[in-house]
Amino acid sequence: MYHLTFCLIVISGLLSLFPGNSCAEEQRHVLTSLDGKVDCETWELNGDGWYVKKETLHGGKQEGVELITVDNGVMQIVIIPTRGMSIYEVRSKDMRLGWNSPVEGIVHPAFIDLESRGGLGWLEGFNEWMVRCGLEFAGHPGTDEFVNNTGDTATMDLTLHGKIGNIPASSVEVIVDSEPPHRIRVRGIVFEKFFYGPKLKLTAEISVVPGADTFRIDDTITNLGSADQEFQIIYHTNFGEPLLGKGAKLHAAINKIAPMNEEAAKGIDNFATYAGPTRGYIEQVYLVEPLANPQGMTGALLQNAKGDRGASMFWSTKQLPYLTIWKNTAAVEDGYVTGIEPATGYPYNRKIERAAGRVPKLKPGETRQFTIDYGLHADQQSVKSAIKKIETIQGKHPVEVQHKPSATN
Amino acid sequence: MYHLTFCLIVISGLLSLFPGNSCAEEQRHVLTSLDGKVDCETWELNGDGWYVKKETLHGGKQEGVELITVDNGVMQIVIIPTRGMSIYEVRSKDMRLGWNSPVEGIVHPAFIDLESRGGLGWLEGFNEWMVRCGLEFAGHPGTDEFVNNTGDTATMDLTLHGKIGNIPASSVEVIVDSEPPHRIRVRGIVFEKFFYGPKLKLTAEISVVPGADTFRIDDTITNLGSADQEFQIIYHTNFGEPLLGKGAKLHAAINKIAPMNEEAAKGIDNFATYAGPTRGYIEQVYLVEPLANPQGMTGALLQNAKGDRGASMFWSTKQLPYLTIWKNTAAVEDGYVTGIEPATGYPYNRKIERAAGRVPKLKPGETRQFTIDYGLHADQQSVKSAIKKIETIQGKHPVEVQHKPSATN
Amino acid sequence: MYHLTFCLIVISGLLSLFPGNSCAEEQRHVLTSLDGKVDCETWELNGDGWYVKKETLHGGKQEGVELITVDNGVMQIVIIPTRGMSIYEVRSKDMRLGWNSPVEGIVHPAFIDLESRGGLGWLEGFNEWMVRCGLEFAGHPGTDEFVNNTGDTATMDLTLHGKIGNIPASSVEVIVDSEPPHRIRVRGIVFEKFFYGPKLKLTAEISVVPGADTFRIDDTITNLGSADQEFQIIYHTNFGEPLLGKGAKLHAAINKIAPMNEEAAKGIDNFATYAGPTRGYIEQVYLVEPLANPQGMTGALLQNAKGDRGASMFWSTKQLPYLTIWKNTAAVEDGYVTGIEPATGYPYNRKIERAAGRVPKLKPGETRQFTIDYGLHADQQSVKSAIKKIETIQGKHPVEVQHKPSATN
Repeated sequence: MYHLTFCLIVISGLLSLFPGNSCAEEQRHVLTSLDGKVDCETWELNGDGWYVKKETLHGGKQEGVELITVDNGVMQIVIIPTRGMSIYEVRSKDMRLGWNSPVEGIVHPAFIDLESRGGLGWLEGFNEWMVRCGLEFAGHPGTDEFVNNTGDTATMDLTLHGKIGNIPASSVEVIVDSEPPHRIRVRGIVFEKFFYGPKLKLTAEISVVPGADTFRIDDTITNLGSADQEFQIIYHTNFGEPLLGKGAKLHAAINKIAPMNEEAAKGIDNFATYAGPTRGYIEQVYLVEPLANPQGMTGALLQNAKGDRGASMFWSTKQLPYLTIWKNTAAVEDGYVTGIEPATGYPYNRKIERAAGRVPKLKPGETRQFTIDYGLHADQQSVKSAIKKIETIQGKHPVEVQHKPSATN
Repeated sequence: MYHLTFCLIVISGLLSLFPGNSCAEEQRHVLTSLDGKVDCETWELNGDGWYVKKETLHGGKQEGVELITVDNGVMQIVIIPTRGMSIYEVRSKDMRLGWNSPVEGIVHPAFIDLESRGGLGWLEGFNEWMVRCGLEFAGHPGTDEFVNNTGDTATMDLTLHGKIGNIPASSVEVIVDSEPPHRIRVRGIVFEKFFYGPKLKLTAEISVVPGADTFRIDDTITNLGSADQEFQIIYHTNFGEPLLGKGAKLHAAINKIAPMNEEAAKGIDNFATYAGPTRGYIEQVYLVEPLANPQGMTGALLQNAKGDRGASMFWSTKQLPYLTIWKNTAAVEDGYVTGIEPATGYPYNRKIERAAGRVPKLKPGETRQFTIDYGLHADQQSVKSAIKKIETIQGKHPVEVQHKPSATN
Repeated sequence: MYHLTFCLIVISGLLSLFPGNSCAEEQRHVLTSLDGKVDCETWELNGDGWYVKKETLHGGKQEGVELITVDNGVMQIVIIPTRGMSIYEVRSKDMRLGWNSPVEGIVHPAFIDLESRGGLGWLEGFNEWMVRCGLEFAGHPGTDEFVNNTGDTATMDLTLHGKIGNIPASSVEVIVDSEPPHRIRVRGIVFEKFFYGPKLKLTAEISVVPGADTFRIDDTITNLGSADQEFQIIYHTNFGEPLLGKGAKLHAAINKIAPMNEEAAKGIDNFATYAGPTRGYIEQVYLVEPLANPQGMTGALLQNAKGDRGASMFWSTKQLPYLTIWKNTAAVEDGYVTGIEPATGYPYNRKIERAAGRVPKLKPGETRQFTIDYGLHADQQSVKSAIKKIETIQGKHPVEVQHKPSATN
């Protein structure tokens, strides 16, 4: 009795996209363009054992939300261009990178007011597996200073975790490399670029190789303004059941770890082990200086209690020198979740971060790159192997545990 | 020279929907679903002497607003799923439940900023006959305390009348009972459900029997969180011309009535009688403890001056123990209107309401039901009969009139 | 591999719209109507050497933005009904009225939060050639007083430049005069009309005669409320490269000019000459009392350095008695731009403007008209001729230059 409206779809029909290597050029498909001329309600590209599809959600707060799903034959990665190129979830057989937030549906930014509830409006849309916090500011709400257009110092109430996760991508492309292994890339450009404000451009790329059990986030942030520009980015990566559960464990290469507040201090000796869903649990947040190997790489892994499922992430501490571990093993109804969050700093208000020297700046035209490699580990052997990699980074380097929170760290 | 875009419509064509009672199952039509997969620009269902249709408005602030009209042969009820299942108006021959607000058109929530104009942004979309206020907070703007995610007490600036009236329904169904009298139900689910916030679910149902001159709101509110949750709801039901007019009268079963402020105190002796449109009129608000009969039912009726048109509402004081009478007989251009508002409390800021013990709580998983039966009275006899019902509830019970406003009541 | 969705278009096909004068009635085409029933994704009207077309942008922050382009054979005027009938740009051969703001794309108001960044959210969508500021308030952010619905004095944080530029037009029509010279008019109605708030109606008309090198803005503002209503309007008209450049000059008929602050005071002796793009430049703002001729007309012109391109504007000081010159010759990346802004006042916060007697009021039902005639000057002769017109207004009247900013002017 109801009807679905849809655009006509042209399916590429390239069952064998690259017959030999005769096709030397990459495949590039524009789904959203800066000129606003592309309108593509649904779209699909089929390859040999993989596909990429775009759909648009309708109704309620989801009206108009665009999703791009990349299926590489092993996993489905669900990307939300409408929400700053966040990743809603990654599914692979019985594994799911993602969590069950109390937030229903995938909320269109038009329904988000970041200023709401005392600067906590961001929480009304928060249910992604991976959402970037930033770029002008990325941490807790509260008043910070800035220099306004008349050259005077003014104050501004920052809102939780910044704007980038609620800005739709201005440009979205699907690119398939012409060269083997024919990596499939979904690339979006998200601007946090205002008059008398920051002029930051995020080029966010999520990519995967057909048949692989790993995938990559490869972002660049560019300062398009004429003056030095502060920025912050947190890769707020969130895991819930079934990977997270009573007895699940975190592995990470750590130089130093400290509790964010007194509540976290209580649990610091067990920071690496997770409780089951717990009514009335108050979040515990740990601030980590990751340890890197000589190549600058560090890593973290979350394994289930049994040790036969895991998700790993590896990145460079030159790019993302800080890591926040957010334990929120609350009741399932309230959001049973842990965040593993590589970042340019910690989630304090920018004022505190600036004072601590953790707010980087980009010179005019300067670009900074951020690469995180994620791995899905679907059996004990694969989990062990990834843990081994992290342990090798740690080596015999002691973990410095600070038991009391710093005043403002 | 212009064009209307529209989906193809399948009309049910069930001129006789229930031939005998052979069709044992209810008819259920999904217009909006939680998975975001249903997209239905227009839709229509035709029965024997009734219909339900859905349309979508376009242009200006109305772009994308969905309306569902139920015509039971006697009245047309116009529901706005996009605005939290509010009812825009009810039309029946020369009667109209509704009012002429200065707000032009039916405003899409994407254009509403509740924080605007000092927390009064709600007023920029306010033109419905019936809009629910709530659910986390329902009253006046102002600072209130809450417990934040770190377990600390924080403050939050509440906005006027809360969020629920500007949240689109995540799910919308039209249901037709299989059993006589084949009640037609429009049911929507509206979530006010955030991470580190309330986890409230409103199931809002507006229903009517074919050929009847009454209809019903039947809502449930459920706490889907793991902790006790405060909530507030006001059924902000608003009447303008032609029912409201000089000499129009309010009938209600009242235990106690008090003025909300000094302005209202001036008019308390004439609280039940309405002036014509009056330039410079300042609103007068009266706070009523309704009187219930042994079954717990109370009622109110607004009649026109002549006494040959009226609208009544009956409800249980166990569900909605408080009633606010809002007299705003201002100039027509400014909104000539009265509100008759059964509620869980009064429209003070939640801080005041909490202190007065008027903010109910729901335990985890608990559901509370709210039913209001509305009647249209199109002749003197019908008006008299409904007044009689209210007078019977009042009986000889005296009305306690408080002439001075309480400090904060 | 992608698809464009579009409505079917009926092209009028009136290559000769007015054969003789036998067609006595104006042509009137409704593109958006108050009842929300018109849905017109694209639309086109073709005349003899001119056309009007409507398109709708898609993707990112531009999703759903409607543009109307009027091409009169000499210039293309691009109007944004979705953004309060602002004019994005006017193109004519190698001339462009417009500027390159750091704001990417034409931002849909649903993505604008005027309260953001301390009341500076307006800047996140600011990239138009001409945007109206107003109507309830038009200037700088900050706290102002107002009388609320209970008759009490309350305070409200005003946001930069008001709301009107981010309110979509509720009604849009294209009108072609039946009489020669067959002026083409795009007329939109934008309401800033709230319950317990202002009840202002802006009828905004942009019009042009086929083949002419001038065009006109002709607006009316009406108070639809029952009480006197303050209002403010600034025509924030902005010019960038190539018209603006090192050595570009401003010509204006001036009675008095004063710097807005100390920064502007430094440059007052060269207020009429522009620097090239300058890194770290801080805006300089000058407050002008324009000089009018006996008919009440004044004018301003911006010419390029060479003097062979210019844009002029003429208006009545009875309608718009104040003029703000905004010099922002910053780096190109940050927005190299100057604003020439006829207005009912200066861009101070309304509180200051009110104290200075520069906030006009409309009586109930009263309408105020605002007409600005713009000219494109594409050669030296045309530039000179327009400058001459301004010099004639100035005559021998001295320009009173105030070198120090007034406390609040």
